[in-house]
Amino acid sequence: MAVVTTIERISKYVDQDVTIKGWLFNKRSSGKIQFLQIRDGSGFIQGVVVKNDVDPEIFERCKTITQESSIVVTGCVRADDRAPSGFELTVKDVEVVAIAQEYPISLKEHGTDFLMDHRHLWIRTPKQHAVLRIRDEINRAIRDFFHERDFVLVEPPIITPASCEGTTELFEIDYFGQNAYLSQTGQLYAEAAAMAFGKVYSFGPTFRAEKSKTRKHLNEFWMVEPEMAYVDFEGNLKIQEDMVEYIVQRVLENRKMELKTLERNTESLEKVKAPFPRITYTDAVKLLQDNGFQFEWGDDFGAPHETFIAEQYEKPVFITHFPTKMKAFYMQPDPDNPEVILGADLIAPEGYGEIIGGSQRIHDLDLILHKLEEEKLPKEIYEWYIDLRRYGSVPHSGYGLGLERTVAWLCGIDHIRQTIPFARTLNRVYP
Amino acid sequence: MAVVTTIERISKYVDQDVTIKGWLFNKRSSGKIQFLQIRDGSGFIQGVVVKNDVDPEIFERCKTITQESSIVVTGCVRADDRAPSGFELTVKDVEVVAIAQEYPISLKEHGTDFLMDHRHLWIRTPKQHAVLRIRDEINRAIRDFFHERDFVLVEPPIITPASCEGTTELFEIDYFGQNAYLSQTGQLYAEAAAMAFGKVYSFGPTFRAEKSKTRKHLNEFWMVEPEMAYVDFEGNLKIQEDMVEYIVQRVLENRKMELKTLERNTESLEKVKAPFPRITYTDAVKLLQDNGFQFEWGDDFGAPHETFIAEQYEKPVFITHFPTKMKAFYMQPDPDNPEVILGADLIAPEGYGEIIGGSQRIHDLDLILHKLEEEKLPKEIYEWYIDLRRYGSVPHSGYGLGLERTVAWLCGIDHIRQTIPFARTLNRVYP
Ligand SMILES: [Mg+2]
Ligand SMILES: [Mg+2]
Repeated sequence: MAVVTTIERISKYVDQDVTIKGWLFNKRSSGKIQFLQIRDGSGFIQGVVVKNDVDPEIFERCKTITQESSIVVTGCVRADDRAPSGFELTVKDVEVVAIAQEYPISLKEHGTDFLMDHRHLWIRTPKQHAVLRIRDEINRAIRDFFHERDFVLVEPPIITPASCEGTTELFEIDYFGQNAYLSQTGQLYAEAAAMAFGKVYSFGPTFRAEKSKTRKHLNEFWMVEPEMAYVDFEGNLKIQEDMVEYIVQRVLENRKMELKTLERNTESLEKVKAPFPRITYTDAVKLLQDNGFQFEWGDDFGAPHETFIAEQYEKPVFITHFPTKMKAFYMQPDPDNPEVILGADLIAPEGYGEIIGGSQRIHDLDLILHKLEEEKLPKEIYEWYIDLRRYGSVPHSGYGLGLERTVAWLCGIDHIRQTIPFARTLNRVYP
Repeated sequence: MAVVTTIERISKYVDQDVTIKGWLFNKRSSGKIQFLQIRDGSGFIQGVVVKNDVDPEIFERCKTITQESSIVVTGCVRADDRAPSGFELTVKDVEVVAIAQEYPISLKEHGTDFLMDHRHLWIRTPKQHAVLRIRDEINRAIRDFFHERDFVLVEPPIITPASCEGTTELFEIDYFGQNAYLSQTGQLYAEAAAMAFGKVYSFGPTFRAEKSKTRKHLNEFWMVEPEMAYVDFEGNLKIQEDMVEYIVQRVLENRKMELKTLERNTESLEKVKAPFPRITYTDAVKLLQDNGFQFEWGDDFGAPHETFIAEQYEKPVFITHFPTKMKAFYMQPDPDNPEVILGADLIAPEGYGEIIGGSQRIHDLDLILHKLEEEKLPKEIYEWYIDLRRYGSVPHSGYGLGLERTVAWLCGIDHIRQTIPFARTLNRVYP
C-alpha cells in the first residue's frame, strides 16, 4: 500500500510508493512518455508516465486529463537533481476525480484585470502560490517573535466610534442607527491593553477609504501593532530591528523553494541583520537637498525621496525625529526639541518604501489634552483614551508594520495587490 | 544590581533581587508593614514593605501611592506557599512613575453598563485579565494546531460584495459608490484557497447585524474557519475533535493560574479527549420528545434543547445529519438520504451551546447551481464560487469555530461580552 502524503513531505519517501491527492497543473508528452506537472497545494512535482511500464488503460486515461483536473496519483519517489524540488514521481496509477472544463488561465500572458477577476484561480499558479506561502510564513514568524517575548495578543475592535487618527478617509457604517467607522488602526486600543498586559500586539485588518491607485496602497490591509508599557524611543527601535531581522531570516530559512520560484535575489535579504542604520529627518532633508532634490524641512517624503535615502544603505533604515506637525497627535515630542517627535519610520531597501511607522506615545495628561484640542478631536469620544493618562500612566511606545508591504519586499514583487489573498482596491470588491 | 524581569518569570530569581515595572493594584497596611498588591500585566504579586527594614522615606512614599499608580518596585523574591503565585517580594525600593487619580473601578460591585463603559480599565482587574490571557492561549493553540498539520493561513476579505450565506443580517458600507457588506464568514473564500493550498484556515473578525441581546451573541466576533480539499464528513469530524482536545489540554497546561483566578472547575475540562460522542439530529429529536419537550423534526434547537442534549454526555457532542432545509446552501446532502446533510454542530458541555458548525461542501457543479437557484442567490456574484466546481472540483469539508464561545466555555463565564477585549453589542461601540 502506498502512503498518502503531500509533495512538501515527499523527501521522506525516496524509492517508496506514495499517493498524492492534487490537481494537474500542466502536461507535455513525447509519445511514449507523458510528463504530468502535479500540484497538491503544498508544492509542485513532475510525474513521469512511461507507456511500457503502466497499464495501457492508465496511459490512455492520462491523455484525457485536462489542466486543473483533480487527480489522485500513485507512484514511486525518485531523487532527481534536475527537478526544482529535487524529486520526481514515477507514476504507477492515476485516478481522475473530476475533469476540469477549459481553464481560463492559460500559460500565456493575461492582463491584470483579467487575473484579478480570476483571483480565486490565479492563486493556484506557482508565483501567486509562492507569494501567499511566504505571507503565511511572515505571519507565523511575527506571531512567534512576539510570543517568545511574552507579548499578549489583544484584538482591537473593527467597528469604532471615531477616526482613531483624526483623518477623514474612513468607511462609514450604520451601526443600529449610530454612525460608526471601520478601524484604520488598532493602536489606541492596544495602548489601553498595554496598561493591562504590559506588552501586547494586535494583528488584524485595517481600512482606509483612500481613493488613491498606487502600487503601494490597498483599501483593506493587515497590520501588526505592538504596544509596550515602560518602553521608550530607543527600546522601540530595538524591538523593531530585532523583529524585522527575525522575519527575514525565517523566510530565507523556511521558504527557499518559494523564493526560487519568484526568482528573488536573496543576497540583499541576507544582509538584513540588526542593528539598522538611522538618519534623522533633518539630516535626510539635507541629504536630499545636497543631491539636487527640491525639498523643504516640513515636506513629506514621496517614493523617489524614500528610494534615494534607502539607496544610501544596505539594510532597512530608520528615519527618526520627524517634525511634530507632520505626525499623529499621540506621538511624544522630543523634550530636547519639541519641534520633532521621538518616533521613526522604517524604510525597506530596494525601493519598497515605508514598512513601519512608530513612536513613543505621549503619557502626560495635560499634553494629550492639549493635543486633542489642537487637532479639534471630539474629547468625549477619546475620554477612555485620556483615562490611560489619568490612571497609571507610564512612558510607552509602539509601532505598526504593514503586512502586505513586507510581503511585497521579501517577495520582490512590484504590486501590493498580489500580496493578499483577495485584494480590495478602488473599484474592486470581487471576487 | 537587581535584574529587571516580569512577575510571570519571577520563579527563576528566588532569593535574588529583581525590579518589576508595573502598577499598584491594591494595598493594605498593619502599621509597621505595608502590603502592596502589584501587577505588571504578566501577573500579580504581593510586595511586603517592612518599616524597620527600609529607608523611612520609602516607607512614607508607599503610603501615598494610590490604586493604579504606576510604580517600579525592587525587592527580593521569596518562595511562599501561601501566596497564590507561590512567591512574594520583600520590597527594598519603590519608585513612583505617576500617581493615579481616584480610580473609578473600586473593589465594590459595579453594574455591567458601568464596567463596559470602563472596559479599558476593567481589563486590568484579575478576572478580566485572566479571561483575556486564556483567550490569547486559545488563539495560539489554534494556530499551532493548524501549523503542525501544514495548514496555510489565508485571510479572506472583510469587505464583500454579497451575503455569503444568503442572510439579511449584514452591516452595509458604501464602497466608493458600490454597495458592499462586512463579511459574516470567510468560508467561501477559504474554499477557493483550499483548492490552491490543499489545507487552509482563515482566522479573523466576522460580523452579524443581529438585533438580538443574548449572553451568546456579539455583533463582531472572531472565527477560525479551516477548509480542506480531499476531506470528507468523517475526516472533518476527526480534525474537529482533535483540535478541541488540543486547545483544552493546552489551556489546562499553560494557564493554571488564570483558571484558578476564575475559580474554574477543571475536572470537566480534563475529560475533553477525542473521540467525542455523536448523535444524529433525528435521534436527538426523539430524545427530546421522549423527555417531554415539544419538538418537531425540522425545528431548530434552542438553548434548553442544546443543554439537555449536552447533559447526556461528559464530553462535547456532535449533532450530525441536520435536515438539509435548515442549513446553508453549500452543505453536502447525504447521498443515502438527501433530506439530511453530511455536517454536524459541536455542542460544548455545561450549557455553553454550539461552538462549531461544519460540513462536507457540495462539490458537484449541477447541484451547487441548483441550490443557488433554489435560494434565489444572485448567480453573477457567486460566479467565482461556482468556478471552484468547474475546475478541479474535489470533495472537501470545513467548519467554523467561534472563538468567543470557546473562551466563555473554557473560562466558565456566563456572558460572552467578557471574552473579547472590546465587545460590540447592540447599542455599544464605546470604548
Ligand atoms: Mg499607529
Ligand atoms: Mg460556515
